[in-house]
Amino acid sequence: MASDTIENPKVPRTERGRKTQRKLLDAAAIEFGERGFHEASISSITRRAGVALGSFYTYFDSKDAIFRALVLDMSDAVKSAARDAIADETDPLAIERAALGGFLRFASEHKEIYRIIDEAEFVDPDSYRAHYETIGERIAQRLRDGAQAGVMRPDLGEVEAWALMGMNVFLGLRYAIWNRSGDPTPEDVAKAANTLLAKGIEA
Amino acid sequence: MASDTIENPKVPRTERGRKTQRKLLDAAAIEFGERGFHEASISSITRRAGVALGSFYTYFDSKDAIFRALVLDMSDAVKSAARDAIADETDPLAIERAALGGFLRFASEHKEIYRIIDEAEFVDPDSYRAHYETIGERIAQRLRDGAQAGVMRPDLGEVEAWALMGMNVFLGLRYAIWNRSGDPTPEDVAKAANTLLAKGIEA
Repeated sequence: MASDTIENPKVPRTERGRKTQRKLLDAAAIEFGERGFHEASISSITRRAGVALGSFYTYFDSKDAIFRALVLDMSDAVKSAARDAIADETDPLAIERAALGGFLRFASEHKEIYRIIDEAEFVDPDSYRAHYETIGERIAQRLRDGAQAGVMRPDLGEVEAWALMGMNVFLGLRYAIWNRSGDPTPEDVAKAANTLLAKGIEA
Repeated sequence: MASDTIENPKVPRTERGRKTQRKLLDAAAIEFGERGFHEASISSITRRAGVALGSFYTYFDSKDAIFRALVLDMSDAVKSAARDAIADETDPLAIERAALGGFLRFASEHKEIYRIIDEAEFVDPDSYRAHYETIGERIAQRLRDGAQAGVMRPDLGEVEAWALMGMNVFLGLRYAIWNRSGDPTPEDVAKAANTLLAKGIEA
């Protein structure tokens, strides 16, 4: 992606501007999710958003720019979903269970997130990598907090954080995106994963 | 992808034919890994393989067909790498550690595998899904074997298999593809992941 898009998205100065930008991002999530980056078009995004084509450029410089902004927006949405889900928890292991449960519900309601984040590997590799590195750091911090609270082992670090992130991403892929009838509920998946995480799989 | 490519790859009848098909698949791994599916070309694959352009069609019907064959070939290569790595192990937990170590070494030596498998999500979604479902089933079988041996919990199933697969895929992404100087060795990563898997992260 061209470096001249780094300043995007432009920050709207009015509440009305913020709402229009939000509408464009929500429409972009549907457009990129359904058609993929290459087939997606700015005119289709503005049509979905009910926004005049010319207004698009008040908020984003290009299709690349809104895609990049969308990946950041989805990273924020994943972060918020986890934060909301863990708000009432204090035990470090209960926090991990609630975070996964919240993510599974979020992914079920926003199935387009996998396709968009995964396509970023090809369309915008820096955003793709930043997405996972940011989440990995957040998980590593929670593991340090858990160790400090005396609930988790003190030797946990980046390996465990990426292992936990991979668990959550693949459980989302299997149970939120490729879900089948008869599957366990998100809560049951989160519970089983949490038992693995807490105690492992040894007999 | 068109259903008329299902019969591909064509099965060569001679040893020489098998070698040529192997050369084409190896060249395709480099071509698709470096340029991505859309930029890749059959003429560039045959040039890299040192094979006449016309011979390509003896083995594959199209670019789609060799891509599909390559995803299957890489699934087989991952399977072989794991099988070789675990050949000397009998303990079910040692098998998991050796399988991850073998996968990390394999991915370090074949970094193109992530890009190719990940691009299959867009180019050939059925192959993408089959890749992970096949690995997930193989892991689930190992967990059942571990339970039968009395080493692993008897209640392990698909959730734990996909959790373990996600751990391994993301540890490969971080330590084989996005590796940095000062990172732990593949053996140390596999050891730490195995401790998490065996005993969890509780203090």
